[in-house]
Amino acid sequence: MIKQTFKTIEWLDGKLKWLNTLKLPYEEEYIESSDYERVAEAIERMEIRGAPAIGVAAAFAVALAAYNFKEGSIEDLRRHVLKAMERLSRTRPTAVNLFWALNRMKNILDEHYDNINAVKSALVTEALKIYEEDVEINMKIGEIGNKIISDGDTILTHCNAGALATAGYGTALGVIRAAWYSGKRIKVIATETRPVLQGARLTVWELKKDGIPVVLITDNMVGYVMSKGLVNKVIVGADRVLLSGHVINKIGTYTIAVLAKHHGIPFYAAAPTSTIDVKSKLSDVVIEERDPNEVRYVLSKLLITVENVPVFNPAFDITPPDLVTGIITERGIATKPLTENLRKILRLK
Amino acid sequence: MIKQTFKTIEWLDGKLKWLNTLKLPYEEEYIESSDYERVAEAIERMEIRGAPAIGVAAAFAVALAAYNFKEGSIEDLRRHVLKAMERLSRTRPTAVNLFWALNRMKNILDEHYDNINAVKSALVTEALKIYEEDVEINMKIGEIGNKIISDGDTILTHCNAGALATAGYGTALGVIRAAWYSGKRIKVIATETRPVLQGARLTVWELKKDGIPVVLITDNMVGYVMSKGLVNKVIVGADRVLLSGHVINKIGTYTIAVLAKHHGIPFYAAAPTSTIDVKSKLSDVVIEERDPNEVRYVLSKLLITVENVPVFNPAFDITPPDLVTGIITERGIATKPLTENLRKILRLK
Repeated sequence: MIKQTFKTIEWLDGKLKWLNTLKLPYEEEYIESSDYERVAEAIERMEIRGAPAIGVAAAFAVALAAYNFKEGSIEDLRRHVLKAMERLSRTRPTAVNLFWALNRMKNILDEHYDNINAVKSALVTEALKIYEEDVEINMKIGEIGNKIISDGDTILTHCNAGALATAGYGTALGVIRAAWYSGKRIKVIATETRPVLQGARLTVWELKKDGIPVVLITDNMVGYVMSKGLVNKVIVGADRVLLSGHVINKIGTYTIAVLAKHHGIPFYAAAPTSTIDVKSKLSDVVIEERDPNEVRYVLSKLLITVENVPVFNPAFDITPPDLVTGIITERGIATKPLTENLRKILRLK
Repeated sequence: MIKQTFKTIEWLDGKLKWLNTLKLPYEEEYIESSDYERVAEAIERMEIRGAPAIGVAAAFAVALAAYNFKEGSIEDLRRHVLKAMERLSRTRPTAVNLFWALNRMKNILDEHYDNINAVKSALVTEALKIYEEDVEINMKIGEIGNKIISDGDTILTHCNAGALATAGYGTALGVIRAAWYSGKRIKVIATETRPVLQGARLTVWELKKDGIPVVLITDNMVGYVMSKGLVNKVIVGADRVLLSGHVINKIGTYTIAVLAKHHGIPFYAAAPTSTIDVKSKLSDVVIEERDPNEVRYVLSKLLITVENVPVFNPAFDITPPDLVTGIITERGIATKPLTENLRKILRLK
């Protein structure tokens, strides 16, 4: 299995333990709670972030709600768990993995069980399965993605699509890890990723832990490093991929994709198939607008502008399929035409 | 003349007084010194920044060296002033206005004067002339640039090419001021401009002072706002313009220019003709690499990443002529073909 010096998220019989990524890189703070509401808040505050990690955390939160349910009938338990699911569904509207994980938990809840303990046990088992599958899927994404990496490549990545965004190993950083551990001499350029600085705080921290060479740049240096010929490939994660091939990911991804196209650099998104949203149209996608103080302040600590200046703060942007070279999934790489090849990977008719 | 609630730079008989732009937007701190070395440090530390302001400050610093020279022959004075010029020329290698201003001061020094006082007086007069010309030139750039602005436009700008980067009024922000005061209902989108955040700190502060509507974004949101149709024009300043039409400006300018091209949005640089470098070839341009801690820390205050992570920190980038719609100068707008039209504006054969 994977070697890692930290665990992003861990189930401890009736409690969930998670690494508070907001405290990185200063402090490795772990939080434990048996309260699903506390997990919902952790997702909202981005203590737990990254689409796959959010899905896993939400599944565990549902398991917590069931596991720690004390008194009442099986119908009371069902109502309690449904309330937890409803609460969790309101945490981060853009992350499709959240709804995918909640849906899997709902399917378990909808099955017929004789007694309360059987329901509880089935929900905990399903959450653990979602967790383990996520790690396995990431390792598979890494293995498959590694095929497109050449010895000597410099790979630019944005935000954090790493072990800190998943149950472990990572998606975009899973590809980078797989390439590195297979002996390829690669380098990474990480964008700092304003406003919340996941690149500077998390990606740099994670890659340094694994000893993978990384250079940090500000987001506006992407054009510069590409024009100097310093970037061979772009690999980012994805919060959601539409069947049309649109990639919804951290704000700034679209800017990088346009620049990659201009410089003839391949642009890949690495994401599990659970991230592929087969139902939604582009017009259905809600882009979350976050607190303007994320832009006015750096990490809630340092005011960098005039107080109360109006700001835009979309958390995500949308990269259209014409800018995407391929989507790396655990079932293969979907190249162009993206819709046709995504359908093949998903075995849709 | 221009109305402004602050003066970026001011000559006070034998002393120079300047606004320490590093303290903005928190504090309006003015520094006074009669020591040219202190002015050189102010340029290096970016207390005074922006190509035109640097040129004006360097001229005043030479005037200070002469004005405060106490004892010795006219030859001693010349040596002392030449030493000051040499020191000042080493402050910011990319800013062509610096060399342009020092050259004008050198030409005065090379003239024949009967006595020390005449030399001193001539140098102070020339520095004041450079200062006044800069304000006049900016107002002219504003007047000319205003012709391309339509009522209702939203203009995206980068860094600070405003009153805080010049002797007054500004270049890119001079165009915006001229449009606003001529009654056009315009809006501005300002990029925060990492690493030193001149957009968030200075452009927002300056525009708020004048009551011009401004929205702040992080640098990686440029693609997003353009894709949403929220930007009609891009206007930036320039630290140096080559006769080939290459625009050397704050890091991030090139990224914006590529995005503007992709979205069919006109991209203009506003700069005085003193910024046009008729001698250098592209290969002659030295891009200043600044202290990596500018990237690792925000405003020297807040560490945002793992200490000692390698970083790139180029202060400038180069936008090639195919991405430039026009160069707005005090003598007219050079459109394509840029070289031919820049030569016309400069009345070169």
